[in-house]
Amino acid sequence: MSSAFRAKSFPYRSAVEWVAEKRGRLTASGLPPLEVATPPEFKGHPGLWSPEHLLVCAVNACIMTTFLAIAERHNVSFLSYESEAEGTVEMVEGKFMFSRIEVFPTIAVADEHMAAGVRRAVDGAHRRCLISLSLKTEVIVHPEVVVEDEPTPS
Amino acid sequence: MSSAFRAKSFPYRSAVEWVAEKRGRLTASGLPPLEVATPPEFKGHPGLWSPEHLLVCAVNACIMTTFLAIAERHNVSFLSYESEAEGTVEMVEGKFMFSRIEVFPTIAVADEHMAAGVRRAVDGAHRRCLISLSLKTEVIVHPEVVVEDEPTPS
Repeated sequence: MSSAFRAKSFPYRSAVEWVAEKRGRLTASGLPPLEVATPPEFKGHPGLWSPEHLLVCAVNACIMTTFLAIAERHNVSFLSYESEAEGTVEMVEGKFMFSRIEVFPTIAVADEHMAAGVRRAVDGAHRRCLISLSLKTEVIVHPEVVVEDEPTPS
Repeated sequence: MSSAFRAKSFPYRSAVEWVAEKRGRLTASGLPPLEVATPPEFKGHPGLWSPEHLLVCAVNACIMTTFLAIAERHNVSFLSYESEAEGTVEMVEGKFMFSRIEVFPTIAVADEHMAAGVRRAVDGAHRRCLISLSLKTEVIVHPEVVVEDEPTPS
């Protein structure tokens, strides 16, 4: 791994094969296959991940994984992390694209002292998320840090 | 659907929840859950889809689904479609991002007359793929159209 880091270049490969109608099958070495389809609103199929969903997932998950890396590096403690995300596809200059992606991470901490470090980590995740940095689309992050009270012993 | 098309704005939502270590679980209404993780080279886990893979998948699958839409609209016939893709993450101005994504679709047709229409459709897919249009990353498409000989009756 250290030599790969020196090279500072990492390849990510996948393959897609058309199955039928507007459906395909994504594969990558060592990973479980993933069914994909055109979404229903573009004359596709319900119940399957679409390329549109995958992009929103990539952004949402990358902000989480970047947060986890920063939290680890700076010994930032937290109890839970969950995040909703919504991407909007609309016509821009005559072509469909993602005009914006909004991400709503909710991070629970045990006490107020931990909240500041978590806020810095999620801010860093927004700035360093390599998927967001690869996008023209504006990515807006709305973090919420909640202090979870310890359950009172009965 | 027609009213949605008039509005010309389509939302795509997903949620991610941290599970443990560098792993999470992606969900979206009506879709099968998807395990996700930081990839091994960034101190994550093997065997799970990463945000990096999901972006390459989104591009690769979107070029396919856009091709399928154009082929349908213009009655372009083909026998099969499969496509490898490789995205490269590297440091650009001190931050990791996807510097390029290369896509290698191979489309089989029954005879040479169908090849020209397929080439136009894949060219159109490259220009109109809404994921590519949402990226700063350069997306390079290397299409290959192959004429499959009918099997000779024995």
